Amino acid sequence: MHIEILTIGDELLDGLTVDGNAARLGRMLDPVGLRLSRRTSVRDRIPDIVAAMTEIASRAEVCIVSGGLGPTSDDLTVDALAVAAGVPLFEDPEVWARIVARFDGRAPTANNRRQARVPEGGRALQSEIGTAPGIELTLGQCTFFLLPGVPREFQWHLDAHVLPLLRERIGERLPPRSRILRFVGIGESAIGARIERLALPPELAVAYRVRDLDIEVRVRGADPDAVADAATRIAAAGEETFVGEGDVSLVELVLEACRRNGLTLATAESCTGGLVGSLLTAVPGASDVFRGGIIAYANAVKTQVLGVPPLVLESHGAVSEACAAAMASGARRVLGADVAVAVTGIAGPAGGTPEKPVGTVCLAWSGGGLDRVTTVLLRGDRDRIRLLSASRALDGIRRGLARTGAGA
Amino acid sequence: MHIEILTIGDELLDGLTVDGNAARLGRMLDPVGLRLSRRTSVRDRIPDIVAAMTEIASRAEVCIVSGGLGPTSDDLTVDALAVAAGVPLFEDPEVWARIVARFDGRAPTANNRRQARVPEGGRALQSEIGTAPGIELTLGQCTFFLLPGVPREFQWHLDAHVLPLLRERIGERLPPRSRILRFVGIGESAIGARIERLALPPELAVAYRVRDLDIEVRVRGADPDAVADAATRIAAAGEETFVGEGDVSLVELVLEACRRNGLTLATAESCTGGLVGSLLTAVPGASDVFRGGIIAYANAVKTQVLGVPPLVLESHGAVSEACAAAMASGARRVLGADVAVAVTGIAGPAGGTPEKPVGTVCLAWSGGGLDRVTTVLLRGDRDRIRLLSASRALDGIRRGLARTGAGA
Repeated sequence: MHIEILTIGDELLDGLTVDGNAARLGRMLDPVGLRLSRRTSVRDRIPDIVAAMTEIASRAEVCIVSGGLGPTSDDLTVDALAVAAGVPLFEDPEVWARIVARFDGRAPTANNRRQARVPEGGRALQSEIGTAPGIELTLGQCTFFLLPGVPREFQWHLDAHVLPLLRERIGERLPPRSRILRFVGIGESAIGARIERLALPPELAVAYRVRDLDIEVRVRGADPDAVADAATRIAAAGEETFVGEGDVSLVELVLEACRRNGLTLATAESCTGGLVGSLLTAVPGASDVFRGGIIAYANAVKTQVLGVPPLVLESHGAVSEACAAAMASGARRVLGADVAVAVTGIAGPAGGTPEKPVGTVCLAWSGGGLDRVTTVLLRGDRDRIRLLSASRALDGIRRGLARTGAGA
Repeated sequence: MHIEILTIGDELLDGLTVDGNAARLGRMLDPVGLRLSRRTSVRDRIPDIVAAMTEIASRAEVCIVSGGLGPTSDDLTVDALAVAAGVPLFEDPEVWARIVARFDGRAPTANNRRQARVPEGGRALQSEIGTAPGIELTLGQCTFFLLPGVPREFQWHLDAHVLPLLRERIGERLPPRSRILRFVGIGESAIGARIERLALPPELAVAYRVRDLDIEVRVRGADPDAVADAATRIAAAGEETFVGEGDVSLVELVLEACRRNGLTLATAESCTGGLVGSLLTAVPGASDVFRGGIIAYANAVKTQVLGVPPLVLESHGAVSEACAAAMASGARRVLGADVAVAVTGIAGPAGGTPEKPVGTVCLAWSGGGLDRVTTVLLRGDRDRIRLLSASRALDGIRRGLARTGAGA
């Protein structure tokens, strides 16, 4: 099946946004055995959008269009599709009713009314998130899906509307010919070296991607059995850095493991400044596990709120295993949690010394049988060091609860 | 000048790499008054690459091609250009000599020899970094620049070879013809409606982008004076939701305003779970302002750590202005800060009631003359509501310090 994507927006071509929706679509197609043939991006100009749509309609079977469905005057995708199809626009009363309902008594603007328009022959794809509906319309041999460019709305529509149609068209689901494995607490080149030593069959392709909290390894090939066998061997090669397959999330694994063990959780953060807490609470339902945290950025907060002995700061410094351990036990006590994790380190760019260079991070876990303290040297810029610190903090809970065996 | 970019590689379409080269080119063009008209990405297949090149040659004056110049068998860009131009390839002895020299005694492979080939009528663009030279060739009216896809090498060639040619073609450098303005605490459609009421000259283009913490409005046109005038009017129309121009960051504005006023800052977070603290500490040097925060996710943390009276929780609930106010004054006291901001709300998807639906967020500021409490109803999914809550929390400090005038 020939599938293309058309992304629309000046911001994409002016370099203000890196377009992630094409990548999102590419990754979604892979597990069902499909591939994206071409990507096109054009500006917010009707003639440009119409030209691209007309060209794509002449060669593709499915085209996903991202962006330009918002309420403002530079949102022209629906108008362009109507021009390309040579049909008028009408207002869909059901879509309009949903927009009005969403405004909950306040008055939608004339601009919002634009979002209720659908080209003749097309149908609105209702959204459960965001105000913009998607639109489906077939032009010649090509089915166009117009989707909002906001990444989470785009993803929602892909799952709800596009994937079911693709599945239906290709008949039953093809056997997976790629597998995604996730690793935490190991670098890209280190996991790469371990996988090279496996000497996998040369017809299998292995690709790597560094994500916020894990390293993603994708293995792909024509033979599903060979892929499955390779996936098993790759997972084993990762030892305890292997966290799971596919959509598995480190944060959800941690929350589930705590839940299963009846443990509540607290955080004490210095260099991550609330990032660990923010990651935990991004998951709905975290409240049955996570009690809260202390962001102890200033040393006075470490001593006065968390009870870190001033002598520890004087003799070992704030970035030390002794300080991390005291922060963790303090957080557990102050926040009344079963388990606490503490992070203190030097995220840079300033603050490094020869003994404690930028990237030095001390981590401690307290309670629940997880008592441990460690120091790691992480590489990258400030954002990367903070993310890696958070990832290590969370992974220590995952590994600790796996080791106690209580989670099984 | 009509400029396009063609990026080549299976990894771009499979979602394994987010293509940053188009963004790099877009950002480079803007200061010289040029714009990228279209972006196309195709797979590592000669027919696909030839088709795209032929189409682009029929409409563009300049086309930058990224990727497929490496030494491996899936690097086909030069072969495709020769097919599109209908010319043979020859080996450039100077390029080959440089490749040999770069190998410094070791033997280049037959694959490296491929990198010395140039289509007839084209010229090699020598590189001081990397082994792959670029290639320049004019096809019809369109000058093609084939550049390596490795971001560092791509950027090097842009600066060394592409920009000088563009400057030469457009004569002297044009004045900037676009301005970016940022707004916080107002929705995309609301700021859009205000700007439409300005009835700006129709030759000016206005574009909108929703970012994590602000709404970006870009105004652009051929006449720099008209753009400057429109920018002034748009900023004024935003009233106090206007935070600044260009690269300005809400978080940095807040930290600078606190610094200027000699105020230290603390946070008390429930539904944002550490996000506000994480945003503040993402900025290097935040430590001279930010003391720390309490993530009070469980109600017991609100009462026991922040000192929220249990009666407040019983009679008003955790999502109430009374609770937010008590959280803020508690955080100020416990963390020893001059100013504290508190956030408590319902981020969803569960937890809403008819009286307090999902998106209800109470915010309070305490100290530094900023004492205030408010309730807002935010729309979006959990992530979006948390981001908007954090944005409102920070913006309250910015607005408060602007109002006191102390920051001037």
